[in-house]
Amino acid sequence: MELLVYLAGQIHDDWREQLRKKAEERGLPIIFKGPQEDHDRSDAIGELIKGKQPNAVYRDHAASELNNLRTRIWMQKADVVIALFGEKYRQWNTAMDAAMAIQMGKPLILVRPESLHHPLKELSQRAQVTVETVDQALDALAYVLE
Amino acid sequence: MELLVYLAGQIHDDWREQLRKKAEERGLPIIFKGPQEDHDRSDAIGELIKGKQPNAVYRDHAASELNNLRTRIWMQKADVVIALFGEKYRQWNTAMDAAMAIQMGKPLILVRPESLHHPLKELSQRAQVTVETVDQALDALAYVLE
Amino acid sequence: MELLVYLAGQIHDDWREQLRKKAEERGLPIIFKGPQEDHDRSDAIGELIKGKQPNAVYRDHAASELNNLRTRIWMQKADVVIALFGEKYRQWNTAMDAAMAIQMGKPLILVRPESLHHPLKELSQRAQVTVETVDQALDALAYVLE
Amino acid sequence: MELLVYLAGQIHDDWREQLRKKAEERGLPIIFKGPQEDHDRSDAIGELIKGKQPNAVYRDHAASELNNLRTRIWMQKADVVIALFGEKYRQWNTAMDAAMAIQMGKPLILVRPESLHHPLKELSQRAQVTVETVDQALDALAYVLE
Amino acid sequence: MELLVYLAGQIHDDWREQLRKKAEERGLPIIFKGPQEDHDRSDAIGELIKGKQPNAVYRDHAASELNNLRTRIWMQKADVVIALFGEKYRQWNTAMDAAMAIQMGKPLILVRPESLHHPLKELSQRAQVTVETVDQALDALAYVLE
Amino acid sequence: MELLVYLAGQIHDDWREQLRKKAEERGLPIIFKGPQEDHDRSDAIGELIKGKQPNAVYRDHAASELNNLRTRIWMQKADVVIALFGEKYRQWNTAMDAAMAIQMGKPLILVRPESLHHPLKELSQRAQVTVETVDQALDALAYVLE
Amino acid sequence: MELLVYLAGQIHDDWREQLRKKAEERGLPIIFKGPQEDHDRSDAIGELIKGKQPNAVYRDHAASELNNLRTRIWMQKADVVIALFGEKYRQWNTAMDAAMAIQMGKPLILVRPESLHHPLKELSQRAQVTVETVDQALDALAYVLE
Amino acid sequence: MELLVYLAGQIHDDWREQLRKKAEERGLPIIFKGPQEDHDRSDAIGELIKGKQPNAVYRDHAASELNNLRTRIWMQKADVVIALFGEKYRQWNTAMDAAMAIQMGKPLILVRPESLHHPLKELSQRAQVTVETVDQALDALAYVLE
Repeated sequence: MELLVYLAGQIHDDWREQLRKKAEERGLPIIFKGPQEDHDRSDAIGELIKGKQPNAVYRDHAASELNNLRTRIWMQKADVVIALFGEKYRQWNTAMDAAMAIQMGKPLILVRPESLHHPLKELSQRAQVTVETVDQALDALAYVLE
Repeated sequence: MELLVYLAGQIHDDWREQLRKKAEERGLPIIFKGPQEDHDRSDAIGELIKGKQPNAVYRDHAASELNNLRTRIWMQKADVVIALFGEKYRQWNTAMDAAMAIQMGKPLILVRPESLHHPLKELSQRAQVTVETVDQALDALAYVLE
Repeated sequence: MELLVYLAGQIHDDWREQLRKKAEERGLPIIFKGPQEDHDRSDAIGELIKGKQPNAVYRDHAASELNNLRTRIWMQKADVVIALFGEKYRQWNTAMDAAMAIQMGKPLILVRPESLHHPLKELSQRAQVTVETVDQALDALAYVLE
Repeated sequence: MELLVYLAGQIHDDWREQLRKKAEERGLPIIFKGPQEDHDRSDAIGELIKGKQPNAVYRDHAASELNNLRTRIWMQKADVVIALFGEKYRQWNTAMDAAMAIQMGKPLILVRPESLHHPLKELSQRAQVTVETVDQALDALAYVLE
Repeated sequence: MELLVYLAGQIHDDWREQLRKKAEERGLPIIFKGPQEDHDRSDAIGELIKGKQPNAVYRDHAASELNNLRTRIWMQKADVVIALFGEKYRQWNTAMDAAMAIQMGKPLILVRPESLHHPLKELSQRAQVTVETVDQALDALAYVLE
Repeated sequence: MELLVYLAGQIHDDWREQLRKKAEERGLPIIFKGPQEDHDRSDAIGELIKGKQPNAVYRDHAASELNNLRTRIWMQKADVVIALFGEKYRQWNTAMDAAMAIQMGKPLILVRPESLHHPLKELSQRAQVTVETVDQALDALAYVLE
Repeated sequence: MELLVYLAGQIHDDWREQLRKKAEERGLPIIFKGPQEDHDRSDAIGELIKGKQPNAVYRDHAASELNNLRTRIWMQKADVVIALFGEKYRQWNTAMDAAMAIQMGKPLILVRPESLHHPLKELSQRAQVTVETVDQALDALAYVLE
Repeated sequence: MELLVYLAGQIHDDWREQLRKKAEERGLPIIFKGPQEDHDRSDAIGELIKGKQPNAVYRDHAASELNNLRTRIWMQKADVVIALFGEKYRQWNTAMDAAMAIQMGKPLILVRPESLHHPLKELSQRAQVTVETVDQALDALAYVLE
């Protein structure tokens, strides 16, 4: 029986691709979904589809319509959500996705370096699991599938 | 008919108190609730109630049990949630509360300086109203009560 | 025991005011809520609160943030929704509010002239009650309160 | 992973068929469902199944029982709803389906010519995505599936 | 703290009035609501409000619009539902109200003579409490309020 | 795309078997589920599995545990519920299943002879479709699948 | 603004009465509800209301109908649930109430001596707050009300 | 059509394995899921994945994060939950899982020796089926699948 896992978090490196590869190597029956990982495309998608917007705020608004469409569809189908926080960026999207998962009753695996324990303490307390690395998150999924 | 409004956001100045005063001056029948506004008390409350914890991570975890208790109770009773973002701090709690409100079906009024429009674009697109000042949020509530 | 009734529909005449008066004359313990009834204010409210928008589409978008805030708050508190359709205007807001009420599990009283039975047939079939006049809708509420 | 998309909107031309063909050409794994597209059959289906009704209002009521049965079943299974508005007709069914989708928590893609932005402003503000052409709606789905 | 109790069941004698009186004598803080108790009025209410219908089936349909409006409003507000079955009549309304209460998560007190245990066995098994007399149902409520 | 249809109603003749055969002949992709159709087994199943019960009431209670287990599992998976009423028997189980379906948001097709329109009027008004024969119910499903 | 708190747990001493008194002394606006605290009455209530049952299992079953009626009504109205575990008794009722509260989305305060941390670890991890004494639970409520 | 059944209860013998074998022998299309059955691994999994914890309480807390992750995922996918109670151990996890199933609307089959009828009476009254042996639980599932 396959699990569908949504991968929330930054899109500045290839952590999702590495996770997919490791899951495959371990033979885990997991389908991973996530946001658009091409950062420029993610920012531009609103104008690419809806056309030129009058200013930067509305350019962002248009992009968010599409990015949220994608997130909502895959998160509604997901069995579990992994949310990865790092040292850089504000990552409010990640916090939003993580909190949505909690409120939807989907188990959340929060991944954050220990250095972020203070600002993420309330989110961590409501997550189902808090770990420090993506590999630990994969260990958690493997445990479910044992 | 009174409205109950939950005020999510930073606890480093007295914006909630000012909002309460202005609502009263305008005669608006609104009850405001929010998190613990004494920052030190908010961080210490876990150990104050549960006793000494073995390290900083678990000190934070204990505090979050109490802070989330408070947040969940008042947000479940709220008719509307206002979430205020500022230039400083990571404010992941604010993002969490804002996203929870959206997923609970509670209308969210997002307050953020225009300078933050890019990192908050997905949250803003799912909020019911996005404004730039707390006074505008109060105008929005006043409009509901006209 | 009071009922809270949301009055969806056009805002071009004073049908809500007349309904309030008749309910009062009959001594019915009903609180009526509804959208902003000043049409110009309803269209302008976005720019009044959020400031000048770059074009007509975004002016409308801003106004809708506030109008939907109001509608959502009162509809979530309502026990019953009355939706009035007339011969004029497209009234897509009215259809939206009526359908929202159905999906929220709130009983809907649909008021429409018989001449509109064909285009409103699917909405009528899912309404709890379909009548032709606002007075009949009030009779229905009175029957609940007998 | 396939998506199931419900296509709400007028049934006076073959826009659904064209959309199906384009999705196929682009290799998108989408199953489209929608209302009965034969307009006469849609109006007559009540009497065809339930027998002669006493007047036009009840003829319509009977047809709506069947049309709503169909709509409810496919919308409950849908991952996304596309609602197309055009210049002609009152299209209250389309508004009903669009609002139902929003309230069910299904992402809504609203398609409308820019000329209709004013009467559809409240619906547009609550949709997940608003575009002007069916092709843009397909672009949005393709973005989800990238 | 008051309880609101909905009284489903036949409307051919004054069992509700007697229950109200006994609750009052015992000083129980209970508000009782129920269907229209005037049987002729209950059957006629559709035509009284909506006007003459083309035949007996639609006369009944019209009456049910109003009767169901009343039932839905009070049952949604109720803390508990009592459903009384007797030897006479088909009482499908009573069964409907009882099952609705169960599915809404409202505790159901089923009252039926022991002679009906066989045809009501599945409903009884899903009720919260099954008793044989209305007085026993009142005892159950009194126990909650001790 | 297959539909799962739950068939509520009496178990005294083979109407379900006939319906299955007709659906197959028409090539409709429908899976039918329903209660235990062997009446004696349905009544005895409690004691068959749980052992001898102390009296007839508890024998029925035990049987209902099993019958309700079956009904709940298949109804939760069903896309549509058909409930058949006939002239004979009290059929409170059928009314229970029908009302459960309505409250669960599953479309209900009510089948009843016209002669029963009066006692079933409130249930009929809340059903999605009311017809007089099982064949008409199958026509309705076929219409959904066109 | 008052809070309604349900007190789950053993009924062998007067811990609820003491908690009520302390809350009053601290001026906390809390209404406490809970199960029947007279143990013999709790066990006997089924036969007291429903009459003699055929054996001990059914005597218990009858009592549970009434005890669960009471628990469900007050827990559905509660803002918070406190569940107290002690060294003695199996306390499966307490575990049931605690888990129900979690699944209903009601914040749970779990009170247990540290000695029980191992057998209660999964319940504790899903509770909102875990403390060791009833006084600490009251401190938690006081913190919410500050 | 396959059923997914979650097996809650003690992990000190191989009752799940035996149940799987018997279901297979009877040709029942059932997939069984359950908690980690290796008791030591279940207790150690927190530190195995998250690393050394500061004391026994937090070691247990960490393990519970993972065990609850597993339980939540499979229970959310389950059609039915079987909960087995025995004479030994406190089994608060079993009670938690059983109560969660009830509140999630999943049918619960409670298995307990008759000797435990008193302490489990409230849980039993809310279960869908109560039996005394795992074989009887399998009989119940077989009855659903007839």
